Amino acid sequence: MTEYEQLCEKQLTSEDKFNGNILHVKFDTVELPNGNTATREVIRHIGAVCVVPVDENGNVVMERQFRYPLDKVISEIPAGKLDRPDEDRLAAAKRELREETGYTADEWTDIGLYHPAAAYCDETITIYLAKGLHKGERSLDDDEFLNVELVPLKKLADEVVAGNITDGKTQVAILKAARILGV
Amino acid sequence: MTEYEQLCEKQLTSEDKFNGNILHVKFDTVELPNGNTATREVIRHIGAVCVVPVDENGNVVMERQFRYPLDKVISEIPAGKLDRPDEDRLAAAKRELREETGYTADEWTDIGLYHPAAAYCDETITIYLAKGLHKGERSLDDDEFLNVELVPLKKLADEVVAGNITDGKTQVAILKAARILGV
Repeated sequence: MTEYEQLCEKQLTSEDKFNGNILHVKFDTVELPNGNTATREVIRHIGAVCVVPVDENGNVVMERQFRYPLDKVISEIPAGKLDRPDEDRLAAAKRELREETGYTADEWTDIGLYHPAAAYCDETITIYLAKGLHKGERSLDDDEFLNVELVPLKKLADEVVAGNITDGKTQVAILKAARILGV
Repeated sequence: MTEYEQLCEKQLTSEDKFNGNILHVKFDTVELPNGNTATREVIRHIGAVCVVPVDENGNVVMERQFRYPLDKVISEIPAGKLDRPDEDRLAAAKRELREETGYTADEWTDIGLYHPAAAYCDETITIYLAKGLHKGERSLDDDEFLNVELVPLKKLADEVVAGNITDGKTQVAILKAARILGV
């Protein structure tokens, strides 16, 4: 028996509970490995991308953004949702970086996936490292508000370790980039 | 004007869309900094804890667990939800470690918060580093299925960087622990 067969849960029923613009909430019943039945609350999400843009001086282009669920302004790397499920993720990352910060980049490296909350959400975020930056004009939507700042990667990694940056994808992306670049 | 005042969104209305056992889904309207109105889809979650348990040989107690939203068995550090919103987080971390893996620990260090998806979810996870491990018997619920394995911290950090571990809290906790312990 494979590990998957030993541990997997089989969907029995699935009910739509909420269909929003970004969140699709399902209430499912599943059969457990022991034959019992359990319920699962699941968020279906279109997927997203994020970028660690590092300039030639080792600074990262960061954003300060209000996050309504936390009622706080927090530090994050540039990121955004896909426009459609099959959108090319690299193209989406280039768009989000340019629109939110004005920057474009010559060198893009996929540094892995991030699952924010595997227990209840299927969102998959692809993380990119972007180098060879060029500054241009950003093009925010009328209803989008965020401030851009440059912060040294080393300082950011220290801030993550000190607990001062709490956004999950940002923590992962900064610590990965620091480890990859030997900072 | 403070940064909060410049960027914050004020709640105008809030509607319950789904009240599950773990997820509470709200559909809110907010006033943006420019006076426009926008909608926000928000998951309210009770909060959780997770633990990087490192033994005297530098091995981490890891779990292999099926995650229904991803339809996959993935590697994670021990973690669990709070029993109630005001539960002591350290006590919850000790309980989850013992129940899921059988281990107890002498030394506990809070190494910071993790917000899995700040754009749409208020879940806050506290990350602990646990050392001085003692192995005992685990006490899983009848309907809980997971395998425990010991993996060197250095190997885990390399796996995170290589993109082979995708669970968000696990990526953060492993890379933080590796940086703190100089691995």
